[in-house]
Amino acid sequence: MNDPIALELRKALDGPWQQVRQDFRDQIEPDMLLGTPGESIEAQRDRVTSQLVRLASLGHGRVGFPEAYGGTYDYGASCALFEMQGYGDLSLLVKLGVQFGLFGGAVSRLGTERHHDEVLTDIMDAKILGSFAMTEIGHGSNVQRLETTITFDPETNELVVNSPTPSSVKTYIGNAAKDARMAVVFGQLLTPANNEFVGHGVHAVLMDVRDESGKVVDGVTIEDNGVKGGLPGVDNGTFAFDNVRIPRSALLNKFADIDDEGNYQSDIENENARFFTTIGTLVRGRICVGGGAASAAKKGLAIALRYGARRRQFEAPGHDQEIVVLDYLAHQRKLFPRLAKAYALSFAQNAITESLQELHGDTRADGDAPAKEDIRELETRAAGLKAISTWHAVDALQAAREACGGAGFISENQLTQARADVDVFATFEGDNTVLLQLVAKGLLTEYKEMFGDLAMAELAGLVTKQVAEGLVERTAGRAGIQRLRDIAKGRGHESAMDDSGWHLSMFEQRADHALETVGKRLRRANKENGFELFNDAQDHVLFAARAHIDRCILEDALESMEQMPDGEAKDLMAQVLSLYALSSIEDDKAWFLEHGRLNTVRSRAVTSAVNDLCKELRPHVHTLVDGMGIPEELITAPIATGEQTTSYA
Amino acid sequence: MNDPIALELRKALDGPWQQVRQDFRDQIEPDMLLGTPGESIEAQRDRVTSQLVRLASLGHGRVGFPEAYGGTYDYGASCALFEMQGYGDLSLLVKLGVQFGLFGGAVSRLGTERHHDEVLTDIMDAKILGSFAMTEIGHGSNVQRLETTITFDPETNELVVNSPTPSSVKTYIGNAAKDARMAVVFGQLLTPANNEFVGHGVHAVLMDVRDESGKVVDGVTIEDNGVKGGLPGVDNGTFAFDNVRIPRSALLNKFADIDDEGNYQSDIENENARFFTTIGTLVRGRICVGGGAASAAKKGLAIALRYGARRRQFEAPGHDQEIVVLDYLAHQRKLFPRLAKAYALSFAQNAITESLQELHGDTRADGDAPAKEDIRELETRAAGLKAISTWHAVDALQAAREACGGAGFISENQLTQARADVDVFATFEGDNTVLLQLVAKGLLTEYKEMFGDLAMAELAGLVTKQVAEGLVERTAGRAGIQRLRDIAKGRGHESAMDDSGWHLSMFEQRADHALETVGKRLRRANKENGFELFNDAQDHVLFAARAHIDRCILEDALESMEQMPDGEAKDLMAQVLSLYALSSIEDDKAWFLEHGRLNTVRSRAVTSAVNDLCKELRPHVHTLVDGMGIPEELITAPIATGEQTTSYA
Repeated sequence: MNDPIALELRKALDGPWQQVRQDFRDQIEPDMLLGTPGESIEAQRDRVTSQLVRLASLGHGRVGFPEAYGGTYDYGASCALFEMQGYGDLSLLVKLGVQFGLFGGAVSRLGTERHHDEVLTDIMDAKILGSFAMTEIGHGSNVQRLETTITFDPETNELVVNSPTPSSVKTYIGNAAKDARMAVVFGQLLTPANNEFVGHGVHAVLMDVRDESGKVVDGVTIEDNGVKGGLPGVDNGTFAFDNVRIPRSALLNKFADIDDEGNYQSDIENENARFFTTIGTLVRGRICVGGGAASAAKKGLAIALRYGARRRQFEAPGHDQEIVVLDYLAHQRKLFPRLAKAYALSFAQNAITESLQELHGDTRADGDAPAKEDIRELETRAAGLKAISTWHAVDALQAAREACGGAGFISENQLTQARADVDVFATFEGDNTVLLQLVAKGLLTEYKEMFGDLAMAELAGLVTKQVAEGLVERTAGRAGIQRLRDIAKGRGHESAMDDSGWHLSMFEQRADHALETVGKRLRRANKENGFELFNDAQDHVLFAARAHIDRCILEDALESMEQMPDGEAKDLMAQVLSLYALSSIEDDKAWFLEHGRLNTVRSRAVTSAVNDLCKELRPHVHTLVDGMGIPEELITAPIATGEQTTSYA
Repeated sequence: MNDPIALELRKALDGPWQQVRQDFRDQIEPDMLLGTPGESIEAQRDRVTSQLVRLASLGHGRVGFPEAYGGTYDYGASCALFEMQGYGDLSLLVKLGVQFGLFGGAVSRLGTERHHDEVLTDIMDAKILGSFAMTEIGHGSNVQRLETTITFDPETNELVVNSPTPSSVKTYIGNAAKDARMAVVFGQLLTPANNEFVGHGVHAVLMDVRDESGKVVDGVTIEDNGVKGGLPGVDNGTFAFDNVRIPRSALLNKFADIDDEGNYQSDIENENARFFTTIGTLVRGRICVGGGAASAAKKGLAIALRYGARRRQFEAPGHDQEIVVLDYLAHQRKLFPRLAKAYALSFAQNAITESLQELHGDTRADGDAPAKEDIRELETRAAGLKAISTWHAVDALQAAREACGGAGFISENQLTQARADVDVFATFEGDNTVLLQLVAKGLLTEYKEMFGDLAMAELAGLVTKQVAEGLVERTAGRAGIQRLRDIAKGRGHESAMDDSGWHLSMFEQRADHALETVGKRLRRANKENGFELFNDAQDHVLFAARAHIDRCILEDALESMEQMPDGEAKDLMAQVLSLYALSSIEDDKAWFLEHGRLNTVRSRAVTSAVNDLCKELRPHVHTLVDGMGIPEELITAPIATGEQTTSYA
């Protein structure tokens, strides 16, 4: 690619882990990451497993693990690499995520030296494949209520893993049906005391589920989840445990342990706090899932945009040939605002990756614990960004498919499988709706209250405007966007439609007002009316959460744009981000009108401005597609490469 | 089912073809209409073909064909039957549609006795399977520009079918890859005159593509379209023709013929008019596609609602068990407005089916030609309703899948395959965006202008407010909704939120104003600025089209509701249709605010009213699901039947 503007755009989007991304582009070949449409499920699973092993041999598994065990990169790099892997087959992406992120990550972050010594290097090298067995038939979102039991037996110094009910069976577990030798299994830890068992909440153990020959361990029953709506190359399955005995040392004991006398020990006394600390350690998974989905969306948009710029249909007076479909406003409207959002989300993804690196990365000295508020904010943003990014991916791939018509429905054009695969990204690593509630909960509650023994509806009663504003303000201290904001203030109400400062102000008003009013609504909650009061406001709560995340995304994007050198690329980026901001304002026009933030004249002007921006960006479409930095080798769709005829000469 | 309210709802939704629907419910068994997830493509194709043959043996192929050839039912009944078939596997539905609707329908409606005598009975009995070969690589939406040529050779009294360019190859043709013995092939008809060839526009021929042994005919090349994003049981493929010679009599000569002297003859002189008459004859396909998609949506919603009413997740203070997920407002909001739309669309589908029967049905005496305006209106509404219904299906199935979480992603729960299949319904039988433009074109243009040799942008210049209003008024003469309207007028601006007359008025205002203003915008169009002017207004044009169809849907629904006997079922239906109407108003809140049709207080009240209705409908969920009249045998999803555990006892 020789377009200097596109190269500058790419550099901006590549962000701090540019080298990881470029190494990936230089290194990969299509057969390392792509499949062939129509393979049988067995063939897809085998292909994905061997691609996983091959990528591991290239070091992809070592990124993000401690150097002491052969890890080679920092923690943030593992997220950037995952984004790049998202341009390939998403079955492979999920398989990589299960092996190195969920399974490997849980062993690494919840386990201690005894576990690391035993398996970490083999995990990185994909010599031991494993599962992350959290979800059960009865509980996906409400993990605190898992039913699997992990009971300590002091007689034998063992833990007994059991599935006491049909609904306690682990399900949808990646790697389970075919590949997993081991699994990190979550369940309620029980220890005996005074002739009864005391529960300590959800803990995890590392255990074998198959032996080296692949035979399932005694007491474990594994079933195949069978055909799914996507991700055919991932061997999801179920685990049922019939009082399986494992050594006490199998407990992943970073935050809690059972000592030699059989006593439960933890530095975190509150069970709720321990649970959230345990879960919080796994925040990288959410960040990666959002990033991977966003990559799939980018590739889909790239394919639809390239095809749209070639495909012609319908004649018009004064035009010799039929009109290029991307010249139609409706087609532009289908694709450009989603492209703009893809750009904005890239910056937000970079920002959260940096934040993860700063708070969880191995560069941080051990004694230098991050502030709880920072951890909480990271978790809140990870939850929200995951929801927004994965829904964006579903939506963008759908729009891309429709924009390509019948050709879009043919699998070799690389839209349908990605669309089907990305669907469940809205569900796994946290159901999106539940995640947005978590965001609201995070915003509405002081960090310390999070670990109290209170349900959400009660927590809401504790909200104060101060807390909410305090949280919001923390995100707003950056130089670039401060400058944009200051410029806008000087202009007053008659800001131009492309004024980033005005966009920021609109996004802030939406987020602040929504949060403040939802806080007021919920302040009356108590134990009796809590659920009903909260439930009646649930749409309002979700809106406030979304508004907050949208604001964070715009701030991250504008801050990154401001750091670009002045010139054509930056100007083009400013237009793209204007389109992102104005499209979002347009989507919520009714809210802005209802709350007096837009009058009807200006409200209509927003729509005109979106149309104008679509037209202005049209000539730059190839630059904008190239600017996303998708490895060209992975775009094989004939409609995008030009191999497929689109109309007569 | 014994719920008397549900039975009354079902009766209302069943409408005029109640008997066809009930016969279907009584007759069918799961293995006649369902597949098994995970079958290979070959197995699915074989299964679908044999299910097609079996349904033909039960007379499903005879519905809608003339009695003279063994047809048994009326034309409208074939649409109602297609809706019912939409509760089964959608690959089978499409296969049925290709065979009996597109292929059989084209032979029946575009051909004459010589063709009917030859093949019609065999088509009905599925003894001759066939394709409808219209779409080409280069042209899907713009069928007038097809490149396939059908050239008359007077020397041999033959027609020569040819694919002159790579982009002229027929593609995505159902039945082509495996089953089709014959095909109706569309192409440019050319006849010689004065040493050159004269083109007469797009015509169709009936020709063999395979012999009885299945061998492809000489000069025809067939390829398999391969793996698609859905509809795996449909053998889509390509046809390329290398100067294939067929007898002159193969021309489907209902509207045009070549006489024994080799002269082209048609009663419709204008080529454009001939084209639209030809295409218009096939309007049933669009009606059926919309109806079939809507059925798939109903089934998906039924599954999600039944599961949502059982599944529990998250505790709340004052509740012993975890909360049933359908008790959450966010979950209700995901499913209830879509359920309400499914109800409303059912009535609109019945209305358009009645209109088709009246205008195209065999009950009409031959001399009694329907008015051109009525035909035009039918085609406009068919186009619009197809777009709205198929997008609704994509959206509703997506929402249903997400509402069922991980379980929704497991194929045995019947959501994922339907979601994947229905995707392309938004594209075939007319791309939805293009169809909405057709609606606008229909509204903006007098019928006779449609057949002028003018492009859309020029046509738009001809609009007059009178024409537009005339067209709109024709839909508004019915007693039931007139009564609702009159009652509302008495109340003035302070109508209650559940006032159907107010809903009607809001839908009318949206439709009328949008159309009027788009007409004004386009009035300045001429040959020079036509395309640009039109293109800049394209979003406005599409909005006007959608607003018109939404209005038609509400009118049809309320009219049908008004005909229900007074009582609980009717009251419940009124609530359902209120929810439909208010959700639609809520979706377009910004428009109503911008245009002074809602003030900000009332605008917020709309959202509250939607929330209230969700809560009010919650206790009736099983009645509303049963009321849709989906054959229970076809709902096999374990999460819906209760076979799957959802949480511990």
